[in-house]
Amino acid sequence: MAKLLRINSKNKKIAYEELTGPYAGLGGRGLTSRVVRREVPPACHPLSAQNKLIVAPGLLTGTTAANTGRLSVGGKSPLTGTIKESNAGGTFSQKLAKMDIMGLILEDKPDPGSPFQTLFINKDGAELIEIPEITGLGTYDASARLFEKFGTKVGIMVIGPAGENTRLASSIQFTDPRGKPSRAAGRGGLGALMGSKKIKAIVIDSEGSKAPEMADREAFKAAAKRWAEILVNHPVTGQGLPSYGTSILINIINEAGTLPTKNFRSGRFDKASDISGEKMVEFINKRKGIAREGCHAGCIIQCSQSYNDENGEYLTSGFEYETVWAFGSNLLISDIDHIAMLDRLCDDLGLDTIETGTTLAMAMEAGILPWGDGLKAIELLKRVHDPKDYLGAIIGNGTSFTAEAFGVDRVPVVKKQSLPAYDPRAAKGVGVTYATTPMGGDHTAGYAICQNILKVGGDIDPLGKEGNIEISKNLQIATAAVDATGFCLFVAFAVLDTDDSLDTIAKLISSRFGKNFTAEDIAKTGIEILKDEYSFNRDAGFTAAHDQLPDFFINEELPPHNVKWDFTAEELQKAKIEI
Amino acid sequence: MAKLLRINSKNKKIAYEELTGPYAGLGGRGLTSRVVRREVPPACHPLSAQNKLIVAPGLLTGTTAANTGRLSVGGKSPLTGTIKESNAGGTFSQKLAKMDIMGLILEDKPDPGSPFQTLFINKDGAELIEIPEITGLGTYDASARLFEKFGTKVGIMVIGPAGENTRLASSIQFTDPRGKPSRAAGRGGLGALMGSKKIKAIVIDSEGSKAPEMADREAFKAAAKRWAEILVNHPVTGQGLPSYGTSILINIINEAGTLPTKNFRSGRFDKASDISGEKMVEFINKRKGIAREGCHAGCIIQCSQSYNDENGEYLTSGFEYETVWAFGSNLLISDIDHIAMLDRLCDDLGLDTIETGTTLAMAMEAGILPWGDGLKAIELLKRVHDPKDYLGAIIGNGTSFTAEAFGVDRVPVVKKQSLPAYDPRAAKGVGVTYATTPMGGDHTAGYAICQNILKVGGDIDPLGKEGNIEISKNLQIATAAVDATGFCLFVAFAVLDTDDSLDTIAKLISSRFGKNFTAEDIAKTGIEILKDEYSFNRDAGFTAAHDQLPDFFINEELPPHNVKWDFTAEELQKAKIEI
Repeated sequence: MAKLLRINSKNKKIAYEELTGPYAGLGGRGLTSRVVRREVPPACHPLSAQNKLIVAPGLLTGTTAANTGRLSVGGKSPLTGTIKESNAGGTFSQKLAKMDIMGLILEDKPDPGSPFQTLFINKDGAELIEIPEITGLGTYDASARLFEKFGTKVGIMVIGPAGENTRLASSIQFTDPRGKPSRAAGRGGLGALMGSKKIKAIVIDSEGSKAPEMADREAFKAAAKRWAEILVNHPVTGQGLPSYGTSILINIINEAGTLPTKNFRSGRFDKASDISGEKMVEFINKRKGIAREGCHAGCIIQCSQSYNDENGEYLTSGFEYETVWAFGSNLLISDIDHIAMLDRLCDDLGLDTIETGTTLAMAMEAGILPWGDGLKAIELLKRVHDPKDYLGAIIGNGTSFTAEAFGVDRVPVVKKQSLPAYDPRAAKGVGVTYATTPMGGDHTAGYAICQNILKVGGDIDPLGKEGNIEISKNLQIATAAVDATGFCLFVAFAVLDTDDSLDTIAKLISSRFGKNFTAEDIAKTGIEILKDEYSFNRDAGFTAAHDQLPDFFINEELPPHNVKWDFTAEELQKAKIEI
Repeated sequence: MAKLLRINSKNKKIAYEELTGPYAGLGGRGLTSRVVRREVPPACHPLSAQNKLIVAPGLLTGTTAANTGRLSVGGKSPLTGTIKESNAGGTFSQKLAKMDIMGLILEDKPDPGSPFQTLFINKDGAELIEIPEITGLGTYDASARLFEKFGTKVGIMVIGPAGENTRLASSIQFTDPRGKPSRAAGRGGLGALMGSKKIKAIVIDSEGSKAPEMADREAFKAAAKRWAEILVNHPVTGQGLPSYGTSILINIINEAGTLPTKNFRSGRFDKASDISGEKMVEFINKRKGIAREGCHAGCIIQCSQSYNDENGEYLTSGFEYETVWAFGSNLLISDIDHIAMLDRLCDDLGLDTIETGTTLAMAMEAGILPWGDGLKAIELLKRVHDPKDYLGAIIGNGTSFTAEAFGVDRVPVVKKQSLPAYDPRAAKGVGVTYATTPMGGDHTAGYAICQNILKVGGDIDPLGKEGNIEISKNLQIATAAVDATGFCLFVAFAVLDTDDSLDTIAKLISSRFGKNFTAEDIAKTGIEILKDEYSFNRDAGFTAAHDQLPDFFINEELPPHNVKWDFTAEELQKAKIEI
């Protein structure tokens, strides 16, 4: 029977609960957002005892269906004050699912000065233990110690020094199949929420547990086979992403004139080819890294990689387009090794790479750091490790905070979360998502780059307004549903272009749980999730006035297309489902 | 003819305009809030070129009517993001009024790296000039230099290092009749707004100007005479405030059990008598300071003072109850000299004392500073002077920011502005004001301590709910009107208890301007102002959810009365006028 594991971080009480009532049948983002909506007071301080951190594998996680190993982490965001779901890969999710744990709920808060704990879960139960030697360590060292202690087959969820010190840009890192903590629930500062509960790590050992049975094994097998074909047959999921990883986008987005450059001053970077996916793969091959990897077992898309340094030593993985952008064209840094070092440093400190890249842009605007200087950026970022380093404290708190610290008024955030790697003026569909998603500035919540630039699932002019509200709205609903299943978001490329994809997904869910789930239920699932999220935000004080981009996108033209942001706050409301 | 002086800080264009159309007949807060409402986009970044800083004397400022020398400073607050009016004494306001200037509007923004300017206004016109030697100076040194340069009869409005570096807790300081920059438009970070315009100081020389004539001189003279009697005859304005200054409240509020102690953990401070008004006057007399002073010519109440150090040297003035509280019981500091040094330091750095006291409480919560250690608090606060001192940068940015920097979740703010010196659980009328005023946490906007504790203007139980919504609402309307006249807020004590006070005020305005202004028009004026303010805030994204106190007031009982905050957000909406 699928269950919830509820952990009180103050009195150490740990209890299993059945997944019933309002939580029955939910997974992933569906479960995290429902728990936040029902159990977290919208007006509470995000670092107070009243907030909760919820971890939930998707509905299909733990099955043999391809690309279903993703995990949702939810809570009230310390960064934005909104509800938050942050999605990650790694091995942790499938181990939870294998133990039939559909959710962890961390609640309450230890007294000030309490030591950090590690939550250990195995077939015999769960307990909170003190492992003092990992406190203060980066996630690479901390996870290495945990593997030594618990064996190499465990899955690890861990925060770095940034999360321990409740920095607002902090991530939660997850170990990948090679044991590197390279996968992140990056956005929204959820590492700070975990840090406020004084939980340094969660270690899961699923050995001896038996994966739940499929309700209709044969039907599931057939649907899973068709599902794999759908992914393999699409050019993006079958070829583009496996060949160059997500950084294949650098040249594409630059060519489209929407690669944000120098804190969103241009849509073109003259050194884009130096930081492209093609260049990355060239370096990986030369240095005997690995160009194709999955972040979890059963991944067909294989967009990850192991990126080695110039001596051929492992440097980083999960080295994504958004990270390359955040530290690359955004900061005018064109040395891909410096960018890789910044990525590694973020994973190790436990910081969101997107938020941190735009934070460094604020430091450059303020004259604290020279534009384009990768080595100085690394030096500055290292300061986040030391809790007594006050410049490090500022940088660790993200874009909006750093801008306030230094009086910078060109601040690319929505609801205090930084905008990612697509300039909204020249990719208006994703701009609508940035403005209106309940998550704050976020691209994954409704990735209209598909229709705006890649021409997957439609062809909508990225520079004009027509059709962009509609695609964002539909994508936001679909994405919420995808995030409930445990699917990797990248399946969307294939789903959007394949006629029987939604039916296939419905068959997977139906045969997994023995219920009649239809293609129409997918959209219904997405709508229910967004309703929970929008109503939480409303009660937390968010209004239509918060659903807009910063002024400078409205006032300044973006070269080379010389376009402005021209949706009004009123028009943007049409991209939101009604609550 | 009353006029506006509009100053473009970027292109240096300065122009006089007539006060017509929507601005006709407005003064003080009426004018500042109307200009902000009409000319500042509600969603703009407070430090961007689109925000404006407005300075306006009251309708009666510059006349012979007693206690009319106050000034309103307005803009979109860098601290709260709401509309803001911050009210100050000093000599500046009467000099503006003498030149018949009803408002200064500073707009636009110089390019990054531009030098600071000083605006000089005299009978021949106005100009922006560079005085490089005052950049970076504290307000005491800066104003001394400006008096040297422009003569001792000028009035000065100046920011300190905090404002120059756009720190969110920064004030704007005004020189008092002795030439000390001890009077502050403290709240809401308006010093940062002035700093963002690259204006270090405004110097006004009204010599050679002729004060505007009263429309009906005899009628005005008669009304002014009655007005002075009203103030002299009331025990608070005629005796209490002149004898002990505002710090007379320390013992009264402590006795009432609503003196916030150790970051709002108790309503009683066991060392209250060490920091009381009685103790202050004892020290002033022993050290040959001055126990009674006005902050502007024509003040009858004389609540200010010159406080000397133990060597008999001038240390500070405008040493108010809220300041003594903020650094005293709030931080468990009981040495009144340390508190006086913190007050002087705030005036010199250009920081709001209330915001800074609660900020230091956050540093104490975080273990950066020991509770009760005045000398260490002084040492820490001095760091705000150096723009490269990052801990100083954090502290200078106020309570909410400092709490975020260090992960503190006990944060006594409403709309990011710190609550002042009355615990809202045991003074519920002022709690309603904190929650609902368009200004963010603020006591002056509806000072229900009158009815809750002092029993002036009524007697409403401070611990219960009954009547407290109503008194706050009525006081908020009346206060907005008072802030439009140039009256010192303390006239309210006498006004509330004197039958013909409103008629007398109406006669003053009628005879000053030659129009038929009635007692009923006073409330109408207040309502119009609040409408401008609430509608600006609504368009800036503020909702009913923002009109509530932090959770801990709802969850924790306050000793000694063991009361909680028990108004719901819905109930609180009844304290707001409809827009």
